[in-house]
Amino acid sequence: MDINSLTERIYNRNKIAVSRAISVVESGNENSTLLLKEIHKKTGNAYRIGITGPPGAGKSTLTNELIKYYRKQNKSVAVIAVDPSSPFTGGALLGDRVRMSETSTDDGVFIRSMATRGSLGGLSKKTIDAADILDAAGYEIIIFETVGVGQSELDIARTADTTFVVLVPESGDSIQAMKAGLMEIGDFFVVNKSDRPGADSAIMALKTILMFRKHDENSWLPSILKTVASEKLGIEEVAEEISKHHNYMIDKNIFLARRKENSKLRIKEIVEDIIKNKIWTPERISDLNYKIEEVVEGLTSPYSVADTIIKDFKNQIK
Amino acid sequence: MDINSLTERIYNRNKIAVSRAISVVESGNENSTLLLKEIHKKTGNAYRIGITGPPGAGKSTLTNELIKYYRKQNKSVAVIAVDPSSPFTGGALLGDRVRMSETSTDDGVFIRSMATRGSLGGLSKKTIDAADILDAAGYEIIIFETVGVGQSELDIARTADTTFVVLVPESGDSIQAMKAGLMEIGDFFVVNKSDRPGADSAIMALKTILMFRKHDENSWLPSILKTVASEKLGIEEVAEEISKHHNYMIDKNIFLARRKENSKLRIKEIVEDIIKNKIWTPERISDLNYKIEEVVEGLTSPYSVADTIIKDFKNQIK
Repeated sequence: MDINSLTERIYNRNKIAVSRAISVVESGNENSTLLLKEIHKKTGNAYRIGITGPPGAGKSTLTNELIKYYRKQNKSVAVIAVDPSSPFTGGALLGDRVRMSETSTDDGVFIRSMATRGSLGGLSKKTIDAADILDAAGYEIIIFETVGVGQSELDIARTADTTFVVLVPESGDSIQAMKAGLMEIGDFFVVNKSDRPGADSAIMALKTILMFRKHDENSWLPSILKTVASEKLGIEEVAEEISKHHNYMIDKNIFLARRKENSKLRIKEIVEDIIKNKIWTPERISDLNYKIEEVVEGLTSPYSVADTIIKDFKNQIK
Repeated sequence: MDINSLTERIYNRNKIAVSRAISVVESGNENSTLLLKEIHKKTGNAYRIGITGPPGAGKSTLTNELIKYYRKQNKSVAVIAVDPSSPFTGGALLGDRVRMSETSTDDGVFIRSMATRGSLGGLSKKTIDAADILDAAGYEIIIFETVGVGQSELDIARTADTTFVVLVPESGDSIQAMKAGLMEIGDFFVVNKSDRPGADSAIMALKTILMFRKHDENSWLPSILKTVASEKLGIEEVAEEISKHHNYMIDKNIFLARRKENSKLRIKEIVEDIIKNKIWTPERISDLNYKIEEVVEGLTSPYSVADTIIKDFKNQIK
């Protein structure tokens, strides 16, 4: 692979090159690392937005309307939509992707799905790698759209500059039962499909829960907005809230601090992934499968087996 | 610490010794590893049950009734209740603990809470370590009671021989939106508080979702049971379903296979935790904090920093 020729075309926002580069980072091979090291100097300019929430909340429709909003402001937008591995919701998302394709002929819009299914962990790592490609390509807005059902989806949303959670009125009853992570991650909340009954009680339930979030007088207070994305209602307010959150972070000197913290977590994940790959060679896995028999029979303990593996690993990298 | 004297008292099911041993494994120090290696040969006899579900579903009340059921059969029972770190539900669980204390004067019952708050990851590891202590002490039934809101709580429930998910009729509306993990983890489901309206529609919603779980003609089909734990209704059926699932796994030769798989995951986690602790020394963390500045300024990339850390780590363990 000719990295230099590829990076040049990425910097010129050539969609085919961008697409190819994302496939390279998805594969996670050596070229991926070379490419990411090379393009990093061109990153840091895009504003990254995380959109998450339960399946069926209308995240894709809302994303679609946000794209149109930013395009009217002449801003280029890239979307990374993370499909969940769950068979329960795969179908619905596929439909959403089709709907989103109406913007796909626009040169200032780039949409890419990334699948969790079959990914050996590291999905959040690869998603952030892909965002770096899009950032280097000059897209001004990068949207991560994830379904807030698993840890890695939450991890992805967390790496954004501003993250919001999309709910529906029907979520009201279940907000108490909802993954605490989803409640803690939102810089603000959107009750979509708010023309349905129960919108106001959903907002009340949300407010009650949000009161328990740690805060002091200087804290950013998460708003709750209403939208009907399918009728294009409330989209501008969402975009304004993103912008308000951005300005708040800059005013309070926490914008760069948040990026640094994310960057630190990212480096830790990269280091740990590389080391894990070095530990779990096929030989060591098959050795482990053999030792498990002895563990289950009580002849040796998990901690003794772990000791042996670590000793062997140390000898390997000597 | 005199490990031999402690293990002898553990094997005699001395509650004070068991309690002390669990504190040792919670601390995770060197004695913890020595102790766990020593007692492992006495483990493998307890049947491990995982109970999970959203906050407020009545898991503790149900656990309490199951304890009474097994005690009537003259079986000893130990419970590890994992409190979530979320401030939203802490209060409710505290109340549950008080209710559970009515069984605490019984010598055949041992109840222990373990907190997620402040735990540096590894909660599932420590919970399983604690279960090994209880197993070696001769408790015949070990119940893990966790709130199904985070990955580590799900990981804990997953290590059980039989796991069931407790829901309430009000969960009906939100079952579609519920963490896919919670749906996939249950060997069976319990709709508790089933005297409330909506129980049957919650069961219908559950059935619809469960139809999508991968299965073939030999698969275990997860039942959905109704209980009113506060009125002691349906408890026997829950215990019978646990027993039925146990027999099914033995018939199909998957009982030991499941334990081996869990043991393998456990060893992997132990190895990775030890290595992570070796990587992230205070010196390396402070070095990373320094390098982050250069990363954010675009002078170096996350992948280059990762390379440097790995090189340094290799030199250290040489």
